[in-house]
Amino acid sequence: MTPAAEAMSAADEASRGLGVELLEHGEGAAVLRMTVTPAMVNGHGITHGGYVFLLADSACACNSHGPVTVAAGADITFVAPAYEGDVLVARAEERTRHGRSGLYDVTVLRGDEVIADFRGRSTRGTTPKESG
Amino acid sequence: MTPAAEAMSAADEASRGLGVELLEHGEGAAVLRMTVTPAMVNGHGITHGGYVFLLADSACACNSHGPVTVAAGADITFVAPAYEGDVLVARAEERTRHGRSGLYDVTVLRGDEVIADFRGRSTRGTTPKESG
Amino acid sequence: MTPAAEAMSAADEASRGLGVELLEHGEGAAVLRMTVTPAMVNGHGITHGGYVFLLADSACACNSHGPVTVAAGADITFVAPAYEGDVLVARAEERTRHGRSGLYDVTVLRGDEVIADFRGRSTRGTTPKESG
Amino acid sequence: MTPAAEAMSAADEASRGLGVELLEHGEGAAVLRMTVTPAMVNGHGITHGGYVFLLADSACACNSHGPVTVAAGADITFVAPAYEGDVLVARAEERTRHGRSGLYDVTVLRGDEVIADFRGRSTRGTTPKESG
Repeated sequence: MTPAAEAMSAADEASRGLGVELLEHGEGAAVLRMTVTPAMVNGHGITHGGYVFLLADSACACNSHGPVTVAAGADITFVAPAYEGDVLVARAEERTRHGRSGLYDVTVLRGDEVIADFRGRSTRGTTPKESG
Repeated sequence: MTPAAEAMSAADEASRGLGVELLEHGEGAAVLRMTVTPAMVNGHGITHGGYVFLLADSACACNSHGPVTVAAGADITFVAPAYEGDVLVARAEERTRHGRSGLYDVTVLRGDEVIADFRGRSTRGTTPKESG
Repeated sequence: MTPAAEAMSAADEASRGLGVELLEHGEGAAVLRMTVTPAMVNGHGITHGGYVFLLADSACACNSHGPVTVAAGADITFVAPAYEGDVLVARAEERTRHGRSGLYDVTVLRGDEVIADFRGRSTRGTTPKESG
Repeated sequence: MTPAAEAMSAADEASRGLGVELLEHGEGAAVLRMTVTPAMVNGHGITHGGYVFLLADSACACNSHGPVTVAAGADITFVAPAYEGDVLVARAEERTRHGRSGLYDVTVLRGDEVIADFRGRSTRGTTPKESG
């Protein structure tokens, strides 16, 4: 298994079930892709924000350094709606590391259009609080 | 259909697919329940944070007033890990309304233990950005 | 010196210079008051958000348990403008504690009207990152 | 008065009183500088987080487009402590604009070291909620 596949595997078994694919993976950066399925939208065809968050959080997790880095929290701003069938790409970049903590910026895009901006707060420790 | 069921229906078609149930629904408050399924966890059995967010965001949406209220954004802090089989309950309360905007506090609990604290920022308008 | 005065002294030498007063102080709660001075407003007489943040952050710090608790970060939503001469009161309550971390909710009020909602993230450690 | 000076003047009368200087100002970007004075620190010589926020918020405001853009809210992460006499520089960049809303990223630095990361949420309207 390549390091990238390992990263995806460790961080994202739950999100792989949603069809999330790892496109790129490097030191402090990751790009993931997900297509919006009928199960992810409401009656108006608009994607549930939880799935947009899930994609961004997965990108954040892939981006992290080492297996015990976990999300302590995150802030997301929803910029534009996404619809069934949309192909969403999440680009994660490390912004700052300090001691056992880090900040990651993730932008969720549909083509060139921003769908959401996400900022994840990670911490390293022995007690993961979620599987991002 | 009762108003509660309508609220759930309007806000949460996507989350109902995850087994999310509406337990209580009133003016400015909502309680939702979700059981963590195998699809929501990673190899270590820890729930993906995206599903915790999704539950909280759904509670926030049920709590909102009227059909055009949408989530503009949210902040979540992950307090403790949740595991496969856990029954999670999300309690949403309106904190502040001002003009077309509002703040909602959602606590995700497993029994008496806090799993996550979520603060949703909503806005009312004609262009929903996500289906919370 | 009373414990309340000590709490104020330890946490808030900088904010005392702004005329911030400690009205109440107990386990997990604190109430502070500040009058908006001419130095805190712009040409339109509207209070700079930084001073509203400063008041809320000071309330958060008074509220904390023990001398080494420090703010790791915070989110603030500005709800309504405050003006020169306004008497602002910040009410802080502990929301959640988990391990070495905690969440504090602070509401900044002018009478009954909400001016801002603040959520502080604290952590205990030997390296304070700011003096809240 | 130059446009830069006007921007500083409009946005920052309160922060100028703190010695905040505008170093650069362009479309979607601004750089501000502030020296930590004795009034901004506590007994341990550590800068009150409120002043770090104030500097970042001022940079965010300078960065905004037009006079009626106001901060709707912000999130700040304190990365490292700042001390009396430190020269802090805040670099603000527009991250996303959508409709009447925008996101601004501000990094507060001491030399090359990150002191704080700030993300401001702005909105344009006729009722400013704070003077950033």
